[in-house]
Amino acid sequence: MKTRRSDRLVDMARYMLERPRTLISLSYFAKRYDSAKSSISEDLSILKRTFQERGTGLLETVPGAAGGARFVPYMAEDEAKTFIEEIRQDVNDETRVLPGGYVYLSDLLGRPDILRQAGRLIATQYLRDNIDAVMTAATKGVPLAQAVAEQLNVPFVIVRDDAKVTEGPTVSVNYLTGSSKRVEKMELSRRSLRTGSRVLVVDDFMKAGGTIQGMQTLVSEFDGTVVGTAVFAEGRSATRLLDRFTSLLHVDTNLKNGEPILVTAGNYLQEIYKREA
Amino acid sequence: MKTRRSDRLVDMARYMLERPRTLISLSYFAKRYDSAKSSISEDLSILKRTFQERGTGLLETVPGAAGGARFVPYMAEDEAKTFIEEIRQDVNDETRVLPGGYVYLSDLLGRPDILRQAGRLIATQYLRDNIDAVMTAATKGVPLAQAVAEQLNVPFVIVRDDAKVTEGPTVSVNYLTGSSKRVEKMELSRRSLRTGSRVLVVDDFMKAGGTIQGMQTLVSEFDGTVVGTAVFAEGRSATRLLDRFTSLLHVDTNLKNGEPILVTAGNYLQEIYKREA
Repeated sequence: MKTRRSDRLVDMARYMLERPRTLISLSYFAKRYDSAKSSISEDLSILKRTFQERGTGLLETVPGAAGGARFVPYMAEDEAKTFIEEIRQDVNDETRVLPGGYVYLSDLLGRPDILRQAGRLIATQYLRDNIDAVMTAATKGVPLAQAVAEQLNVPFVIVRDDAKVTEGPTVSVNYLTGSSKRVEKMELSRRSLRTGSRVLVVDDFMKAGGTIQGMQTLVSEFDGTVVGTAVFAEGRSATRLLDRFTSLLHVDTNLKNGEPILVTAGNYLQEIYKREA
Repeated sequence: MKTRRSDRLVDMARYMLERPRTLISLSYFAKRYDSAKSSISEDLSILKRTFQERGTGLLETVPGAAGGARFVPYMAEDEAKTFIEEIRQDVNDETRVLPGGYVYLSDLLGRPDILRQAGRLIATQYLRDNIDAVMTAATKGVPLAQAVAEQLNVPFVIVRDDAKVTEGPTVSVNYLTGSSKRVEKMELSRRSLRTGSRVLVVDDFMKAGGTIQGMQTLVSEFDGTVVGTAVFAEGRSATRLLDRFTSLLHVDTNLKNGEPILVTAGNYLQEIYKREA
């Protein structure tokens, strides 16, 4: 049964939104809706215009017989600024400060609305990059890594300090925790990451960066490449083991002036949007 | 600027898909698109029809001045059967069997496409239920719990056996592991779950069900109610500590006939779709 344009638009929007970065052929849509390819092309122009006007993402069209369209989600600068200011206010709350200057974030990193936006924002930085997998450290990095992986539509892998029997053979590396100068071990299931992968490292919180440096070492053990490193929040640190990373928030606790917490925007906005400017 | 119907439909579809189970008022859409409420109502009828025909979900409309529409995702039985058969074949692979009869699943539970479908399928069972939070156990339950929480649009909370300093005050319970009869401890951050919550318990794998029983005890410590329990796969177990749960897959390893693995559909399809029949 031939489908009306309005019905096609609704279903095509859903279909493409659920499959970011995947090329969908004109033929597939033509068959799915029993419609001419010329009609599908017009539909795609409407989708492209709307996604662009609303700052939802790019709709890239690939011409030719094997052509089609690919939806690449991004977040426009205005929405990004609003989002970062919202989470900044949310985190800038002295009841979040725990003994030792740690900050409670688990509630925010358990909220689908925040994760969806954070994932879309982080994916925006890698709009033009090929990424094969997202890597994070158990347990608290998982939600954000999953959210980013959804937007990039690639698998995510979880590095653990205590790989269980259900992981099978693992590759392990030792790393130096930046804060306490202890040597720790982290492992990744051999089977979970393909050799030579291009990897985006994601974590919830970074102080000196020891865990992240460990993950970078692990990527090289898989002959892979670290495409980038993104964290939800960076803390203050006397020593910093790495300098190339982006953060949504900067969190400082136990300040000299007696304030319990001061949260400011991280370096993300500069890093993402400078390239467009 | 008044928006064309086609553009409205694309953006409304995206807007509602990103906010499952949230009532969006007619007034909000009328303002967003500078359009008459009567036009928005017609748009909603088109969305409703398409979502229903394609098995994407329900669009519930609430009449009256405070009215609007709410999108509730579900998965139709045909798609559910196809999905379960796909993951069944994927898991039914002897290279997944590890020493001790454990089964490697981390690759599947790290794939956004599978998680999205599994989340939508599990949410289908609770189409008519009010759920306040999804609970799971670190680390391997997290991806599925997050995927379900996204479809229900509620927070998810992570129970740990070693709560870190970043969790703040915790509530802990002891529980009996079903397989080894050891007494273990699990903890949940006090702050992460509101007292009296209606909780859906989600995990990746269940054998005897000790971990899940522990989580149920934890829910009652928060004066909450367990609305249901869902797992990706259930294993064979001589003793089963609970009988009310649903599973997408049933996994049996080291069979008497010498086969290394046998995967069959879990009890999900029966449980979900019997109510409709």
